[in-house]
Amino acid sequence: MTTGFGLNNLPYGVFSTPGTAPRVGVRFGDQVLDLAAALNDPVFASPSLNPFMAQGRARWTEVRARIPAALENGPLHPLTGVHLHMPFEVADYVDFYASEEHATNLGRMFRPDSAPLLPNWKHLPVGYHGRAGTVVPSGTGIVRPSGQRKPPNQRTPDHGPSRRLDVEVEVGFVVGSPSPLGQPIPTSAFADHVFGVCLVNDWSARDIQAWEYVPLGPFLGKSFATSISPWIVPLDALTEARVPTPPQDPAPLPYLTDAEPWGLDLSLTLSLNGHALSHPPYASMYWSPAQMLAHMTVNGASVRTGDLYASGTVSGPDASQRGSFIELTWGGENPLKLHDGSTRTFLEDGDEVTITATAPGTNGEAISFGEVKGRILPIQ
Amino acid sequence: MTTGFGLNNLPYGVFSTPGTAPRVGVRFGDQVLDLAAALNDPVFASPSLNPFMAQGRARWTEVRARIPAALENGPLHPLTGVHLHMPFEVADYVDFYASEEHATNLGRMFRPDSAPLLPNWKHLPVGYHGRAGTVVPSGTGIVRPSGQRKPPNQRTPDHGPSRRLDVEVEVGFVVGSPSPLGQPIPTSAFADHVFGVCLVNDWSARDIQAWEYVPLGPFLGKSFATSISPWIVPLDALTEARVPTPPQDPAPLPYLTDAEPWGLDLSLTLSLNGHALSHPPYASMYWSPAQMLAHMTVNGASVRTGDLYASGTVSGPDASQRGSFIELTWGGENPLKLHDGSTRTFLEDGDEVTITATAPGTNGEAISFGEVKGRILPIQ
Repeated sequence: MTTGFGLNNLPYGVFSTPGTAPRVGVRFGDQVLDLAAALNDPVFASPSLNPFMAQGRARWTEVRARIPAALENGPLHPLTGVHLHMPFEVADYVDFYASEEHATNLGRMFRPDSAPLLPNWKHLPVGYHGRAGTVVPSGTGIVRPSGQRKPPNQRTPDHGPSRRLDVEVEVGFVVGSPSPLGQPIPTSAFADHVFGVCLVNDWSARDIQAWEYVPLGPFLGKSFATSISPWIVPLDALTEARVPTPPQDPAPLPYLTDAEPWGLDLSLTLSLNGHALSHPPYASMYWSPAQMLAHMTVNGASVRTGDLYASGTVSGPDASQRGSFIELTWGGENPLKLHDGSTRTFLEDGDEVTITATAPGTNGEAISFGEVKGRILPIQ
Repeated sequence: MTTGFGLNNLPYGVFSTPGTAPRVGVRFGDQVLDLAAALNDPVFASPSLNPFMAQGRARWTEVRARIPAALENGPLHPLTGVHLHMPFEVADYVDFYASEEHATNLGRMFRPDSAPLLPNWKHLPVGYHGRAGTVVPSGTGIVRPSGQRKPPNQRTPDHGPSRRLDVEVEVGFVVGSPSPLGQPIPTSAFADHVFGVCLVNDWSARDIQAWEYVPLGPFLGKSFATSISPWIVPLDALTEARVPTPPQDPAPLPYLTDAEPWGLDLSLTLSLNGHALSHPPYASMYWSPAQMLAHMTVNGASVRTGDLYASGTVSGPDASQRGSFIELTWGGENPLKLHDGSTRTFLEDGDEVTITATAPGTNGEAISFGEVKGRILPIQ
């Protein structure tokens, strides 16, 4: 059995076998449990997790408790025989910027003459909305984006394929239970609203982004594609992974104070063409996902079933823990030497990027998040 | 008959009468045609315009041609007897920044020591993603948002209700026909994808926005609510309103060159508690909606049925043409004197804001966009 998909994990996804409709499944080892058939419940016959996620925390707990018995009877399909689909319909997509190391690295590169962290950074989890319609499942080919580029040595911008195509290693949080407009969600209600966790590759065209992003933030440098892993790990599988966030100084305002620890000890790996490049540690993230949710709704904004919010690039303090090429190569100044003797500053056509993660699970057995991967396709 | 809703307009919305389900209607004068019943077509029995909008340009033209005859037979409901709903399900929401006067005014206020327009502004339509889940129909009460505020005289931020609650007078473009991932939409295909036009009030909490927005753009300062008008004016009703954009210097890159004029001669009015405050002229907008769509997809981003993109605040060159309080009061320095003798810098609880617009129509008869309105409710 593939390590990390035991009874302490049981992540949810959407699958189909040849000639059948997409429906909800649960991964167990190298098999997929057909949940619609196993539990004889039409909510799992949906081609997305949204109807089930909308049923709320009590129902999520109840279904999870029934899965071990259901695995005895099946039906189970071998993983190699199923097609995996987008696990949920994305409502709104938000991207945070919650790694102090990542924000500091980018500040040093982009604003070398001032303090690397902007004044607001330690007071609130900085974030912005991304494009929900271009969140794609792992395995989707990523066509190199075109756009406006204006290198420093060029007086005016031109239009063409991005020359600085990058990744961002991130973790995503999927909202199940919605909230009404006008009612902020306190940090203590995080687990009532968030269904589970996935891996996110926030593909980024650094040259497009650098030219466009003032004053309203990233737009086309990000919106061409965001890839997510096919298996949503339930929050209930992460009890052993919970850790406090690093010390927060200054102390956050009361609405941002974590009621309980929601830092997560996920060990991530960024790989290029099958070889590991770095190992970003999620436990180093400054802001917890409960703080992100409380901040995202403090103005009364509602959340919907299927909302996805991502952590921002995970980068640890060590150079081997950086979660993007722009950091790993320091803006392209220090090319990476690859196993095959070639070098990379940014991604080349044909490159395949994979992000994986594991976390401590119950019974001393690690749980796996599977992978999110994508290959760069040349512009058509 | 109410002016502006004649045979040359015929906007679409979603309505219900007491005890009946929401469905698609067409406004004609002070009446609403029940389109599902009139055309005996289930696509109009949907509680949103999305299924009809997804059918594409040829179908939109065909249905519009059949409406005059359908009006002869009805059923028609008096406008006073119907409830108006959200006209469509918002997929992604994007907000542009396409008024040179607005961008210049805000640049002068926020960056008094440098050029008011940033270097990219005349090369591309600057924009960002907003929160689709908090786009609400006209008439929805707007609860004053809370968030982090850090006035210049304060060393650290505090948390509380926004003291600088503002509006932005905007025009919204609603996508009907989707596009596949990886295929930019040329300016020439604008009318194949965009179904119609509505009015948008992009409520803005200036104090929250000013503190949060570096470096990733506006987030909670905008995401608490965005209001739209209930009637979507079909692009086909706007043939007489089309005008060239103002001269663009430097000439835009080829992908941004308008194939035909898509500037729009809409006359907008911003009113507070029933009294007009300003008259923003949409014809002064620097970037056309066809240029916005081409830019939004130049990186291969797909569009979906129900995507909404807004123009950004419409402000003309004259002080009486500004589309936000921050401009009308110059950052709160010059309070507005109201008809009742009171003054305003920003919105107070109980204030009701209304945006209306008209445009030239065929036969010399103006068409109306109706109104988008909302009242500020105190924090709960």
